[in-house]
Amino acid sequence: MDRIIEMDHFVSVEDLTNEQIMLLLQRASAFKTGKVWKSPKHQIFAANMFFENSTRTHNSFHIAQRKLGLEVLEFGTATSSLQKGETLYDTVLTLCALGVDVVVIRSTIERYWEDLIQSSNVHCHVVNGGDGSGEHPSQCLLDLMTIQEEFGKFSGLKVAIIGDLVHSRVARSNMQMLTRFGAEIFFSGPKEWHDKEFDKYGKYLSLDELIPKVDVLMMLRVQHERHDGELNFSKEKYHRLYGLTENRASWLQDHAIIMHPAPVNRDVEIADSLVESPKSRIVEQMRNGVYARMAILEAVLT
Amino acid sequence: MDRIIEMDHFVSVEDLTNEQIMLLLQRASAFKTGKVWKSPKHQIFAANMFFENSTRTHNSFHIAQRKLGLEVLEFGTATSSLQKGETLYDTVLTLCALGVDVVVIRSTIERYWEDLIQSSNVHCHVVNGGDGSGEHPSQCLLDLMTIQEEFGKFSGLKVAIIGDLVHSRVARSNMQMLTRFGAEIFFSGPKEWHDKEFDKYGKYLSLDELIPKVDVLMMLRVQHERHDGELNFSKEKYHRLYGLTENRASWLQDHAIIMHPAPVNRDVEIADSLVESPKSRIVEQMRNGVYARMAILEAVLT
Amino acid sequence: MDRIIEMDHFVSVEDLTNEQIMLLLQRASAFKTGKVWKSPKHQIFAANMFFENSTRTHNSFHIAQRKLGLEVLEFGTATSSLQKGETLYDTVLTLCALGVDVVVIRSTIERYWEDLIQSSNVHCHVVNGGDGSGEHPSQCLLDLMTIQEEFGKFSGLKVAIIGDLVHSRVARSNMQMLTRFGAEIFFSGPKEWHDKEFDKYGKYLSLDELIPKVDVLMMLRVQHERHDGELNFSKEKYHRLYGLTENRASWLQDHAIIMHPAPVNRDVEIADSLVESPKSRIVEQMRNGVYARMAILEAVLT
Repeated sequence: MDRIIEMDHFVSVEDLTNEQIMLLLQRASAFKTGKVWKSPKHQIFAANMFFENSTRTHNSFHIAQRKLGLEVLEFGTATSSLQKGETLYDTVLTLCALGVDVVVIRSTIERYWEDLIQSSNVHCHVVNGGDGSGEHPSQCLLDLMTIQEEFGKFSGLKVAIIGDLVHSRVARSNMQMLTRFGAEIFFSGPKEWHDKEFDKYGKYLSLDELIPKVDVLMMLRVQHERHDGELNFSKEKYHRLYGLTENRASWLQDHAIIMHPAPVNRDVEIADSLVESPKSRIVEQMRNGVYARMAILEAVLT
Repeated sequence: MDRIIEMDHFVSVEDLTNEQIMLLLQRASAFKTGKVWKSPKHQIFAANMFFENSTRTHNSFHIAQRKLGLEVLEFGTATSSLQKGETLYDTVLTLCALGVDVVVIRSTIERYWEDLIQSSNVHCHVVNGGDGSGEHPSQCLLDLMTIQEEFGKFSGLKVAIIGDLVHSRVARSNMQMLTRFGAEIFFSGPKEWHDKEFDKYGKYLSLDELIPKVDVLMMLRVQHERHDGELNFSKEKYHRLYGLTENRASWLQDHAIIMHPAPVNRDVEIADSLVESPKSRIVEQMRNGVYARMAILEAVLT
Repeated sequence: MDRIIEMDHFVSVEDLTNEQIMLLLQRASAFKTGKVWKSPKHQIFAANMFFENSTRTHNSFHIAQRKLGLEVLEFGTATSSLQKGETLYDTVLTLCALGVDVVVIRSTIERYWEDLIQSSNVHCHVVNGGDGSGEHPSQCLLDLMTIQEEFGKFSGLKVAIIGDLVHSRVARSNMQMLTRFGAEIFFSGPKEWHDKEFDKYGKYLSLDELIPKVDVLMMLRVQHERHDGELNFSKEKYHRLYGLTENRASWLQDHAIIMHPAPVNRDVEIADSLVESPKSRIVEQMRNGVYARMAILEAVLT
């Protein structure tokens, strides 16, 4: 019989034990190979509350919910009483009173979920779809899933994380998790986007030195929307200095894979022609996101 | 066998007979205790059209619809041909032609529903989710349900309605209905928000005199969005003069309950700590809203 | 057994063969008379992406999808990563990776669908809900359905298309299709909205000369939103010169019908009282839109 991890909320991947993560990954893979959730007879309501623009996370949660047979309420953040000044806490309290069992929230506010999970009146499960510059735990899970699926292990893998490290909410979770599971981490990209705190996870190397070494090349998105005009390189310059050009890609080992959380800025982080190339797992990451999120929802609903 | 009230539309609670209201309340309670609707075999489509921000009304109608097994169409008021100047009438005519059976509408326009229910070409049922400064009949029903559930009766109850009486679309329905069913009504709050027309329903008293007397304390929301800067008291002053402070709450009778249609301005109408306190029925009102709306939808669809 | 046309995408009606169109019309009629789609056991996901305001097309696709038993994902174009600069191509690539089987897209960009249907990585079916000033093929199909339902044939029918010919994406498809099927086309309306290229389909006549002759009077919408203040007639003047007034309507043959793609500008293209009059098929066109779209979705999903 399958063991299913049970948890009240899924707000952080960094707080989970290795065993909990491994169980989530197992269930995600099971869903991918056609496992069906034995959902309860009664209706279960999920509400999605997205306060930041999202394509992948939002829609893959929605699809994961429907694949599990949940009822889905798309909460209109822009047309709700939040516009009259109602707080997130009171809004979630309301949704729970109306019968919502699980809320998936993406917010601009770091650790927005704290008063929700501490409340004795909010009875629904909280799933974090990204909290400001905090975590993006479901993205971390799907990244781990994609690597495990490729190599069958993490231990001993060389993983490079490249680019906008400081602004990436998934980079920090990934470096921490991958280190825990025995991978070796490297960094590259603009020096001004590197931070000393990353030194405990791995070495900073130049991109050209790094590429021929690695098993996994994780490119991060240049988050134009989080840099207010402070970027001091053009797209072309970024691509030339820190991007995966076709030339650089030719130095990758045969078995190496390219990852990116997307949306990709084509010809900035990665050459246009490489995004859908055989070494790229970018589309597979999206696909895995649905199954990872099914596992997460199952865990909180079990 | 349960008697189910049948009606073509649900646009006003004030126009219903006492018997109709009692039957709706009975059905709402039955749904709350697990009664399942015997829905027809064929698909029934409900469309929700909300022209004003809403959390409770909108989402509880959606959940009520899904609990009844209806198909739900969330009509995008901001992305529809209403933006090209199409009228509400022509939009509802369209939705009916497409196969929508019931439309739930919240509009800024009082009695927007008149030409809809008079048309011989609009065949769908209209449910009023609030019409400008007109009525908010489903809110009135859930308020009645919450009081009846608590006390088993209306007759002889002392009910205080406090605050923004002039701008509240539910206050007028509530005073009228509760009077009809034999409750005794009192008012309090800023004098400038009181109106002589309320004298026929009950007496205006000072808040401090009122609180120890009442069985039900209905606080109304200060509708900042309907006062254009004309408010001449701060939040702190309102709370001190007309709000339910912790001190005032201590004068309430043991069996008295606190109600509020929400969203609550915490520490304005009601002290923060009282919103989720044992005497508060605010969360229960939200919960009852789903069942009251199931009864309403059932009545128009039967 | 019914023959069902199979196609990968439905982007243009002008590119279809006469047989394909006839088969689609047959299926649409079958759905209208209660035919049920034998949908596959597994879940099928449809995503609707509307970049232009729409009431009829958007909601009738949604209803058609639910009538076929599809899961429907309403893609929030305004709250997606398109806002971060992600392209339509990458967005559709994502949705397909997440498991979406068919996307219905309305875009402002003519032939937006070209790189989608040419991609070897986009595996989902594309249904065109209108592409800029290109085509609106599902509208054309429902117009054909409405005429065929009325007269049982196209051959020999006299059809007038009147009004904003240059800006109408459905007018061109309709004149082409109806000509193919043997109808005789006439045009009228403001001369400045006529174009020489239409001469190959039919003659331009004055409205008063035309009305007594025709079997079908297709009025087009004055698309105020596509004319930036360049209109040099008032609504009243347009109605008097080119509109279907009550007086003009009295000259129509007994069996003649009035069509309009809607939204109608009442008292501009058509007198208010005629919109829902016995000769009008405007509401029927909307109704048929659901069944035409069911046939389209069935064709791409089969």
